Amino acid sequence: MTGRVWLVGAGPGDPGLVTVRGLELLRRCDAVVYDRLVAPELVDEAPAEALRVGREPLAQEEINRLLVQLARRGLDVVRLKGGDPFLFGRGGEEALALVDAGVPFEVVPGVSSVAAVPAAAGIPVTHRGVSSQVTILNGHGPLDFAALAATPGTLVVFMGLGRLDVLAAGLIDHGRGPGTPAAAIASGTLPEQRVVVARLDGIAEAADGLGPPALVVVGEVVSLAGLLASPLAVAAA
Amino acid sequence: MTGRVWLVGAGPGDPGLVTVRGLELLRRCDAVVYDRLVAPELVDEAPAEALRVGREPLAQEEINRLLVQLARRGLDVVRLKGGDPFLFGRGGEEALALVDAGVPFEVVPGVSSVAAVPAAAGIPVTHRGVSSQVTILNGHGPLDFAALAATPGTLVVFMGLGRLDVLAAGLIDHGRGPGTPAAAIASGTLPEQRVVVARLDGIAEAADGLGPPALVVVGEVVSLAGLLASPLAVAAA
Repeated sequence: MTGRVWLVGAGPGDPGLVTVRGLELLRRCDAVVYDRLVAPELVDEAPAEALRVGREPLAQEEINRLLVQLARRGLDVVRLKGGDPFLFGRGGEEALALVDAGVPFEVVPGVSSVAAVPAAAGIPVTHRGVSSQVTILNGHGPLDFAALAATPGTLVVFMGLGRLDVLAAGLIDHGRGPGTPAAAIASGTLPEQRVVVARLDGIAEAADGLGPPALVVVGEVVSLAGLLASPLAVAAA
Repeated sequence: MTGRVWLVGAGPGDPGLVTVRGLELLRRCDAVVYDRLVAPELVDEAPAEALRVGREPLAQEEINRLLVQLARRGLDVVRLKGGDPFLFGRGGEEALALVDAGVPFEVVPGVSSVAAVPAAAGIPVTHRGVSSQVTILNGHGPLDFAALAATPGTLVVFMGLGRLDVLAAGLIDHGRGPGTPAAAIASGTLPEQRVVVARLDGIAEAADGLGPPALVVVGEVVSLAGLLASPLAVAAA
């Protein structure tokens, strides 16, 4: 009998931010295939006898094939993905491969970094009177700076750290104010979280020492960061 | 001694999509203040002796004041909000009120509807080669149709059902193709979920029978819905 596959979002980093349903599935799976950035504490929740496969050395096509193979051997598989499977998680590609192979699957959404990581830095991506629109980008993708500079509201960039200079300069060259508040947040929601806040024209330099994983936020909501830095989270850190 | 407040995201509807940390806090709180759309099963997780306050009849300013008052009486309060507190959740306003009053608080992010509800309808909001950008709007807010129609990628509209005709016509008038795939998803992730898929020029009529809460998705990713409708979720429904 064919096993099943659950594409489970592990959340932004903090293992406490996995969903109750995701954790339940993980605790009774036969195999877990996990992303590099998933908290080790979560992988440890799988049964001791469960097969554990790190995703890192594998190309996307190999992952797709592996999920199908494991299910065909009758294993119930949790594919544990950072953040949310369908928001820059490439879960759609894995789901299509499972459909093609006739493997039953289900998507279990997770807490995306898109709002959780800014929140951990005291930044609400929407705020009444400040921003009622959020645009989410992949920093590796093609960037239409003219359209982006004209877009109102908050800009959230996944994997934007490596091209932060290009991103900031492109936005400014196309009309976004050089004084627009910007933030770069590395290892968001984890104990080692680091936050850098600067003007758009200085953010690339200010974020120079940060490493991935990081999220970049551009927009007036960043100016709330100083006000809303969570006193309980600070006390716990 | 002053109590503390946790602004907790309850997720998109399905009670299993609350976070592990959110549920832990809920299970040991002295008071829970909950949104109308939060699953009753979650409110039931608060201790039997905990104070329960439904948010519905209260204006935002009254909620802000209530949270401060409860904390000042020494109660630990969970403010249980639909979706994510900082993504169209008005959590920033509540956090500011707590800061002003000197009440310690923390934001516990939740699974936002933004990707979870489309996922439950088989729609990945990003997909390689199809969409690498997501724009999130509030349907009640001001809409810059010229900018929106020119924005690449996926459009996700919260609270857009009531103005779906205006939204679709505005996008088409400003150059978005009338044949662009669109979806309206009511009560996403819940057993009573209903999904309507149509061309942009027909979505308002097709969605006529749906009621809130609903999310609207516009973009080529909607065409994946037929392929990716989750066989396990269907089997369970």
